Amino acid sequence: MKIVIAPDSFKGSVSALEAAVAIEKGIKNYLPYAETVLVPVADGGEGTMDSLVEATTGKKVSVKVKGPIEKDVLAEYGMLGDGKTCIIEMASASGLNLVPANLRNPLKATTYGTGQLIKEALNNGCRHFILGIGGSATNDGGIGMLQALGMKLLDINGNEICLGAEEIDKIATIDDSTFDKRIAESSFLLASDVQNPLIGLNGASYVFGPQKGATPKMVEELDRKLRHFAEKVEELTGIRLHDRPGAGAAGGLGGAFLAFFPVNMRRGIDIVIEYTNFAHALTGADLVITGEGQIDFQTASGKTPMGIAQEAQKWGIPTIVLAGSIGKGIDELYQYGIRSIHSIVNAPMDLDEAFEKATFLLEQAAEQVLRTFSIHNSKFVKQGGDVNENKTIY
Amino acid sequence: MKIVIAPDSFKGSVSALEAAVAIEKGIKNYLPYAETVLVPVADGGEGTMDSLVEATTGKKVSVKVKGPIEKDVLAEYGMLGDGKTCIIEMASASGLNLVPANLRNPLKATTYGTGQLIKEALNNGCRHFILGIGGSATNDGGIGMLQALGMKLLDINGNEICLGAEEIDKIATIDDSTFDKRIAESSFLLASDVQNPLIGLNGASYVFGPQKGATPKMVEELDRKLRHFAEKVEELTGIRLHDRPGAGAAGGLGGAFLAFFPVNMRRGIDIVIEYTNFAHALTGADLVITGEGQIDFQTASGKTPMGIAQEAQKWGIPTIVLAGSIGKGIDELYQYGIRSIHSIVNAPMDLDEAFEKATFLLEQAAEQVLRTFSIHNSKFVKQGGDVNENKTIY
Repeated sequence: MKIVIAPDSFKGSVSALEAAVAIEKGIKNYLPYAETVLVPVADGGEGTMDSLVEATTGKKVSVKVKGPIEKDVLAEYGMLGDGKTCIIEMASASGLNLVPANLRNPLKATTYGTGQLIKEALNNGCRHFILGIGGSATNDGGIGMLQALGMKLLDINGNEICLGAEEIDKIATIDDSTFDKRIAESSFLLASDVQNPLIGLNGASYVFGPQKGATPKMVEELDRKLRHFAEKVEELTGIRLHDRPGAGAAGGLGGAFLAFFPVNMRRGIDIVIEYTNFAHALTGADLVITGEGQIDFQTASGKTPMGIAQEAQKWGIPTIVLAGSIGKGIDELYQYGIRSIHSIVNAPMDLDEAFEKATFLLEQAAEQVLRTFSIHNSKFVKQGGDVNENKTIY
Repeated sequence: MKIVIAPDSFKGSVSALEAAVAIEKGIKNYLPYAETVLVPVADGGEGTMDSLVEATTGKKVSVKVKGPIEKDVLAEYGMLGDGKTCIIEMASASGLNLVPANLRNPLKATTYGTGQLIKEALNNGCRHFILGIGGSATNDGGIGMLQALGMKLLDINGNEICLGAEEIDKIATIDDSTFDKRIAESSFLLASDVQNPLIGLNGASYVFGPQKGATPKMVEELDRKLRHFAEKVEELTGIRLHDRPGAGAAGGLGGAFLAFFPVNMRRGIDIVIEYTNFAHALTGADLVITGEGQIDFQTASGKTPMGIAQEAQKWGIPTIVLAGSIGKGIDELYQYGIRSIHSIVNAPMDLDEAFEKATFLLEQAAEQVLRTFSIHNSKFVKQGGDVNENKTIY
């Protein structure tokens, strides 16, 4: 029996790798000789860098950069095992998690540090980039990143505007003559599930501004400023970011990439599946076990279990999901190859207790699921003396 | 695919029948044409009467009797569908649930009502009895029951002692000359998993007294009184209840049965399995699903899931358990034919929420378990067009 174990992290509780190890332990409790392959994954959101670096036996590089509120932070980028591909999570330099709740202000927050990370990787010879852009603290249209990479954003007097979103509406000229030339020689793969345009009611400011600390008044102001940016970008490049799907990702950082970078946007989970060589792991597998903290109808919009199940389904391999919490709308998920969904919670308990016990709960649930899965699969269970106990196999 | 659904009640939440119906619904969500057989069961504790009456299409008879604290209660006994067997749950007449917490007092509580129920059934022609003796409020050694059936318990002055445990130590003579003669013509099958003796540190008073409201001082007093009773019984009958296993069941009611009734004691679940004709339900079944509120090492001492799994194992049929809560020591259970154990709780939640949602949780868990069980069972799923959705069956 070969089982591929490919969970996401269980947010607030265990990392994807910890989850995979716990699931493997549960499997081996019952079938000690089962062949297991651990592929901790992430769907392009938080943890993507770690999971790709781990999966490809790459390495991480630490760089001191400006944080989202300009205080320096120690950010990281990853070099994948292929030695060619660099992975950057913008949240590492410009993430909301770097800003204490009382200091969150999307008028001030800048993506400058993300630009510094890219520059550092360019200096180190990287020309192929994967960018995870979830979890941003910013709403600056990516201008901080552009500034860090040499783009000049000048006001009517020819002075550079300050960092953050605050002065975007003062941009009179965008001067790309000093923009880092190495960008054009590189390729950028954006891991993003966000299809929102740059501006308007579905745009970056209205949809994502509030969770970054924007008041309703600030949201209007931010949207107006990004509109000005979009117009200036159109003047220079002819590219209309206004309604462009994906331009609203990461507070408009997506727009800056679309306008000034050689970029492809793909669903995060698909990038992860490609770069972890997941198809190879599936070779000869009888079962895939994936998992995430909360599973519900939103899982169908490209979260880890769905991406994993879709890939497994291509190869005719069934996928079972372990979840901390089962929400509404899971019936939608079966069409993507998810065969069943089990919660790991083994009794009434509060969230804190579930977080604390997550490793044990994952182990126990994995064992029980495998027991149920194996009941009529005597061909799996009998071969190689897999079973860890003396009893009749029906 | 034939599935036998044989859960116990989920205490405080759903009855065995409600649980069975919910599980069936979950199964039919996935396999609408599966053959299901519902056998709601109880392990001899609370709900045994209902479950046997339902399973045999019997009927229930209401009788007004003295409650455990003498206030009248409307108790019930059941006539099984065979028209010959009467089932009495002592808790219906003398149960702890009939006494508000602040009035619990095992010195006062009497089994008189249980005796009245037996008498009423005798009057109605019953001569074969099944007795469920769990959940008692009493610690009276069954003297109340004996008194209701004509036994005379006399003090040194020839006066009858009062009801309850309080005056047991005043018994000078037990006069069985007026004891109901029909008892000797009848047979009594005691459903009891309790092996405790009448007296001593493992006896009725020490082990079960505190949960009925006895203080430590009261426990000593009760134990002394039951010792006196045991000695008087030995004088009259030669039977030593002191150390007799089972005599300590139901506050010593077990002892009264062992001394004065033609009685057999059996594990409750085994009686239920026999009288529900469970072996017949199992014919041709592919799977048994059972369940209970809490599963743990104690389940191995004769609780429903274990009894069900043991019977199913005899016929080579695997059993899956659905539980509200999975406790410690479940590894002990696999040897009895339990193949896997799944909690129905689908997310962190408190006990109240789990109770409230129990029907839905059972349905969802049953569906998911069946999905996992069926993954490689294409022979089940494909036959008869069982599957409720369009997708590849691996």
